[in-house]
Amino acid sequence: MQIPPETFLIDRASAQPLQLQLRRQIVRAVHEGRLRPGERMPSSRALAAHLGVGRITVTQAYLDLVATDYLTAQGRSGYFVSDRVEELRPEPPHEPGATRFDWSAHLDGRNLAAKRKDRPTDWRRYPYPFLYGQTDDRLIDHAAWRDCAVRALGRRDLGALSDDQYDGDDPELVDFIIRHLLPRRGILAHPDQILLTLGAQNALWMICAILLDRGAACAIEEPGYPGLHEILRTLDSDVRPVQVDNDGLPPDRIPDGVSVVFTSPSHQCPTNRTMPRARREALLRLADQRGFVVVEDDYEFEIPFSGASSPALKAMDRSGAVIHIGSFSKSVFPGLRLGYIVADPAFIAEARALRGMMLRHPPGHVQRTMAYFLSLGHYDRQVKRMRDSFAERRRITAEALARHGLDAGQPGGAGGSSFWLRTPPGIDSDILARALKADGVLIEPGRAFFLESEAGRGHYRLAYSSIQAGLIDEGVRRIAQGCARLAASG
Amino acid sequence: MQIPPETFLIDRASAQPLQLQLRRQIVRAVHEGRLRPGERMPSSRALAAHLGVGRITVTQAYLDLVATDYLTAQGRSGYFVSDRVEELRPEPPHEPGATRFDWSAHLDGRNLAAKRKDRPTDWRRYPYPFLYGQTDDRLIDHAAWRDCAVRALGRRDLGALSDDQYDGDDPELVDFIIRHLLPRRGILAHPDQILLTLGAQNALWMICAILLDRGAACAIEEPGYPGLHEILRTLDSDVRPVQVDNDGLPPDRIPDGVSVVFTSPSHQCPTNRTMPRARREALLRLADQRGFVVVEDDYEFEIPFSGASSPALKAMDRSGAVIHIGSFSKSVFPGLRLGYIVADPAFIAEARALRGMMLRHPPGHVQRTMAYFLSLGHYDRQVKRMRDSFAERRRITAEALARHGLDAGQPGGAGGSSFWLRTPPGIDSDILARALKADGVLIEPGRAFFLESEAGRGHYRLAYSSIQAGLIDEGVRRIAQGCARLAASG
Repeated sequence: MQIPPETFLIDRASAQPLQLQLRRQIVRAVHEGRLRPGERMPSSRALAAHLGVGRITVTQAYLDLVATDYLTAQGRSGYFVSDRVEELRPEPPHEPGATRFDWSAHLDGRNLAAKRKDRPTDWRRYPYPFLYGQTDDRLIDHAAWRDCAVRALGRRDLGALSDDQYDGDDPELVDFIIRHLLPRRGILAHPDQILLTLGAQNALWMICAILLDRGAACAIEEPGYPGLHEILRTLDSDVRPVQVDNDGLPPDRIPDGVSVVFTSPSHQCPTNRTMPRARREALLRLADQRGFVVVEDDYEFEIPFSGASSPALKAMDRSGAVIHIGSFSKSVFPGLRLGYIVADPAFIAEARALRGMMLRHPPGHVQRTMAYFLSLGHYDRQVKRMRDSFAERRRITAEALARHGLDAGQPGGAGGSSFWLRTPPGIDSDILARALKADGVLIEPGRAFFLESEAGRGHYRLAYSSIQAGLIDEGVRRIAQGCARLAASG
Repeated sequence: MQIPPETFLIDRASAQPLQLQLRRQIVRAVHEGRLRPGERMPSSRALAAHLGVGRITVTQAYLDLVATDYLTAQGRSGYFVSDRVEELRPEPPHEPGATRFDWSAHLDGRNLAAKRKDRPTDWRRYPYPFLYGQTDDRLIDHAAWRDCAVRALGRRDLGALSDDQYDGDDPELVDFIIRHLLPRRGILAHPDQILLTLGAQNALWMICAILLDRGAACAIEEPGYPGLHEILRTLDSDVRPVQVDNDGLPPDRIPDGVSVVFTSPSHQCPTNRTMPRARREALLRLADQRGFVVVEDDYEFEIPFSGASSPALKAMDRSGAVIHIGSFSKSVFPGLRLGYIVADPAFIAEARALRGMMLRHPPGHVQRTMAYFLSLGHYDRQVKRMRDSFAERRRITAEALARHGLDAGQPGGAGGSSFWLRTPPGIDSDILARALKADGVLIEPGRAFFLESEAGRGHYRLAYSSIQAGLIDEGVRRIAQGCARLAASG
């Protein structure tokens, strides 16, 4: 690699000679690994011009560094970083004797404390990753995404890509969501009812920041989505967990006095149960009577296995009490960071203003690429492919669970990408997960899904979106083996 | 366009016959413009399969709709949306008689109230857009960006693109920022001192959310950056504006008791003044003595006209009190939404946790594309091109201001992309901006830059990043003419 001259900087106000400053900078950068063996230094002419010094100053510095083995000279091709220098672990840039700034007076550590810490980013290194929210690469239509990304970089779309849109969204993406995505969920919406977000997590954050900031209480599903727990802990919200049953959230257990109710009616997270129609109607009636907002997290809606989806809760919302959250992360790929909120225009206007201050808007290129991915039909094809593949994996996983004598869970709603399982009696899923990790198997212990109780220790989530179909049986076998070992040793 | 079958949904729990449901859905979608004239309906086979109904149900619905002129049949090619239907403005999905949900009980309107409302997104329609923060497309190396985006979509980078990175950053981009970008500002940093953000606005938001949430007071520059005013109003922070002078923020005017001081020492926003070294040293000494955090907004650092940049304030920070904000929006393109924070590891850990809950991480593809743009040298070339072009535009603008008898401002620091100007005596820049807009000229009136006073009415910002060089003189002539007209009528 050619090192650009702009890498270097001299300080004319300093008492140090320029040549010495330059030499010290290069030595330090080499030791710290910022300049790497074999990289080519800028030509003395280019560096001198950039620094506004004589060429001889640069040449003299280079020659000194060759003499001290930091650089090597290779005839006409110039100067290169030497490979004879040992890289030192750089020290933080505190001068000896300087006071360290007291950060503890400014930080209460509340965000760090709220953060979920049990998810490995190196999951690809494990052969049996039963890990929710990541996707097997082979299900992603990578060529189609690339085609759309290149289209979205075309001349026609340059403004959408390069402009600061302030608080606006890509009208082409919004149009497609309204015309083709929301009708599938039975939702009719206008552009002033839509806001694009950096994924569902970002949508939840904004909803909480707007509705819960001034001490308002909320009800959540127990067990429920850990990403929501994180947010509520950070905001120090007044939270009332409501135990779910086989039909999801029971409206009659929602305590009085809550302003907001969070629910995942299509696939309850993590139990995968679907809320029946009568209960949905009861929930909406209650919302109108008591005046609470219902936040519908419609994650995974695109992945039902049989026929058309059932309508969203938002589709039944007559009064406008429901805020609906959708995401492309599950159905396109998780790193995309793109989702949307559908809600009353009054709420959307407020959320749009907040988003403008928080981050302006999702990157223009990502929005326009998604618009092409949808409008060219790639999205439908990818969802079909995922649905078929997940149906097969679900069947294989269910068979493997039965074969190896593990709880097969309750059937739950149609579709989804995971099982919610009980551990064998006496087995703690935290301990099980740690033991299995050493055996190449990743599962999600249940504790993160419970806000209050320790009941999660008796559960775990087993996802089949990220593991290859052919490895499921062996993975499940290792889980059964791990359980047996723990039972024997306990 | 071919309409996908997934656009339609029937409700099996409803008492309405399936065929009627389907017909009503199509009629409604046509009236509301979600299905558009000439678009091809799904084949009856595909739609029947998707809905799980008999094909005859679909065919009968289509034939009825042909009879009522909603669809046309075109022999073997199928059914198309008719162009004989007038589009109706759809009503919000509230049933007659249904109660409207009372959103006013849940929203205090504070985000909307804080939002800056004076920036047009349709600036490309104006021939003379002296608009800050947008960039003339011809300065963007579009082909190079596309090349990098395509590289970042290659097999090798698939994980970086598609994975949920939780709260992690692209290590290749962080590596490049540390090795090549920060050294240009005199900053040496480790990966645990860097956090990527969705641009500088997102960085400011997180810093305010962490440091000011519990009633801590802050000092800001007056005039200063309106995007910061928005955030501070939303968070209802205790803010002490400090009048800047020709050398930027005067440390001796910072009131006692503030926890955080926001400053833009390289190019004070909006005056473009550069803080001299002695003042920087005084500011840092004061920070250490009084224990306040200094937030350095290093926007526009890449655009000095002559030689190397001067070091950042962060480069002089011995104790670790400075939080440094950088952005790629000015130097690559504004819609990119990518920036970074450099700060003490304790602060970065807290900010990383907050970012994880707010939005997880900037989209993987955008990060990796930027990493290529930097490492392949495109960034340096683009910055050089912008610098040359801005230097020329600045010269042309200065000449035009002199020629047409307008205040040419104070020279300010080297570089930047705007002038900060006084209106002629008695001219209100809000009124001037409105009058000029009708004449095809966009300027930024000064009021948004002042938190407290009305002094902004006597100032305006004139940026030359978004206007073509050849149109600057005529644009300035129109401003002078507009001033003369207002003076005559006042």
